[in-house]
Amino acid sequence: MFREKIKVFDCTIRDGGLINDHDFDDRFVRAVYRALSEAGVDYMEIGYKNSKTLFPEEKFGTWKFCEDEDIKRIIDGIESKMKISVMVDVGRVDVNDVKPKKDSPVDMIRVASYVKDIDKAIALINHFDAKGYETTINIMAISRALDNELTEALHQLEEESKAKVVYIVDSFGALYQETTEFLVKKAKSIIKTREIGIHAHNNQQLAFGNTIEAIIHNANFVDGTVYGLGRAAGNCPLELLIGFLKNPKFDIRPILDLISQEFIPLRQKMEWGYIIPYAITGMLDEHPKAAIELRASHKKEDYREFYESLKGKDLD
Amino acid sequence: MFREKIKVFDCTIRDGGLINDHDFDDRFVRAVYRALSEAGVDYMEIGYKNSKTLFPEEKFGTWKFCEDEDIKRIIDGIESKMKISVMVDVGRVDVNDVKPKKDSPVDMIRVASYVKDIDKAIALINHFDAKGYETTINIMAISRALDNELTEALHQLEEESKAKVVYIVDSFGALYQETTEFLVKKAKSIIKTREIGIHAHNNQQLAFGNTIEAIIHNANFVDGTVYGLGRAAGNCPLELLIGFLKNPKFDIRPILDLISQEFIPLRQKMEWGYIIPYAITGMLDEHPKAAIELRASHKKEDYREFYESLKGKDLD
Repeated sequence: MFREKIKVFDCTIRDGGLINDHDFDDRFVRAVYRALSEAGVDYMEIGYKNSKTLFPEEKFGTWKFCEDEDIKRIIDGIESKMKISVMVDVGRVDVNDVKPKKDSPVDMIRVASYVKDIDKAIALINHFDAKGYETTINIMAISRALDNELTEALHQLEEESKAKVVYIVDSFGALYQETTEFLVKKAKSIIKTREIGIHAHNNQQLAFGNTIEAIIHNANFVDGTVYGLGRAAGNCPLELLIGFLKNPKFDIRPILDLISQEFIPLRQKMEWGYIIPYAITGMLDEHPKAAIELRASHKKEDYREFYESLKGKDLD
Repeated sequence: MFREKIKVFDCTIRDGGLINDHDFDDRFVRAVYRALSEAGVDYMEIGYKNSKTLFPEEKFGTWKFCEDEDIKRIIDGIESKMKISVMVDVGRVDVNDVKPKKDSPVDMIRVASYVKDIDKAIALINHFDAKGYETTINIMAISRALDNELTEALHQLEEESKAKVVYIVDSFGALYQETTEFLVKKAKSIIKTREIGIHAHNNQQLAFGNTIEAIIHNANFVDGTVYGLGRAAGNCPLELLIGFLKNPKFDIRPILDLISQEFIPLRQKMEWGYIIPYAITGMLDEHPKAAIELRASHKKEDYREFYESLKGKDLD
């Protein structure tokens, strides 16, 4: 697949940070930044911009807050054309923490929101746009959105927001190709003046397939993470995406080195990927929370009981 | 997805046997047979029917040869509606080893063949059909088939063979959804009186996605293996397929138990799944052989060198 407009967006450190409270050390984050830059990746999301009044600083790592000074230390001295992104959640950011773009190393701010919070999200987006940032809206848990509410939210985003990209986020790893196609086509039918993006989770080993499906239907912003790192089942593996895209600006080799040297050892210490309880929450269109708790318990391999407990929940 | 005609075909023991020279013990094979039967799976392929004059018996396990007596020992006393299949390769089977269907526990014989050997495959298929078996043709390495030769082979299969199913086999894990769609539609346009099947490999985490794609375009025979077991990157995980299909005759829970009890321990002893050298051979549409050798060497994590050696090969 070659389409020049396609932008590859890495969120390894941001989504991976959901496993370790955003506590990656500088050496690791610099290694990721360097490899992604060499690979020709367009954007790197480094973490969340959360308010320190809501989250005690001593309980979380650097990338829960993404201070400009921390980002500057990471990118210092590394040649790169890659843009830097941070994510904010509706209700967890203090806009006063965000300087004007001209004084910050950050290029893009992505606003994550459920459909129900879309008005608050638009207010944030327009605030960050006024400060000079590129912005996106990432519509979370879209597999659970009611169609009429999603329609209304998409119209609002097209008509009232400054978002450059509207992202479909399969938070639960529940989408199949047909549902991905439906949602991308629906978004394209309403969002005429911005790009569509896809952020897929890998519960059912469909993150890459659904990302290809979104590309086929003209999504141009595609998220991935190195070796699929991310909470629970993780994300679309960036190396597969780079292997698929034919744009000669991409080079898979720095990513291969990064996996060899950093991610194979990391996988020994942190768990993510294709693990049956996450597959089950994906099939049942549930948040992975219950599966994450199961994996931390002595019942981590008791799949039938876990499946039946979630199925029973549906009947309550 | 609900379509009554869809048949789920398990090849855990057959494809998994390519890792361990077909040497699964009876206890394990019976556990798989029992769980698949309880889950409502339609077919189970238990191994290859190879000639003992070509392969020395002492070097391989039971499921390299699939004697009727061995199969009877496995299924004895287990209630099941599931059909039993064995696979034969063109040039490796002695047809005199195959009794008439009425004297055998085997229901189906699948003939694996490259496009170039299609005449020999048809002769085998028609021989086994005359002996009373259901038969299929499994067209291997289809990602490398020349379009005109594939067209001719499909016409021959439709016009000259008794095969009940024509299988598209993505031996190298190189297909994407677009290529899967192209091949299934092509096969459907020529094969009017038989079913189409899909056997996908998981090098690029697309085995399940490509299987869904084939189902969308009306393939009705879909292969999977428990926990994706299979040579190199393995196959379409059967549990995901069962989770996707809405036919109430399927029950995922016996498969979940089987994975908990047998496949999690097995994965500690045998390697398969998403492993970067297999992803690389998939991207480059190469046989996994070189990657299997790499994984057995001290260079098992030297991905860049491996990638460059395969890319260099293209230029020779």
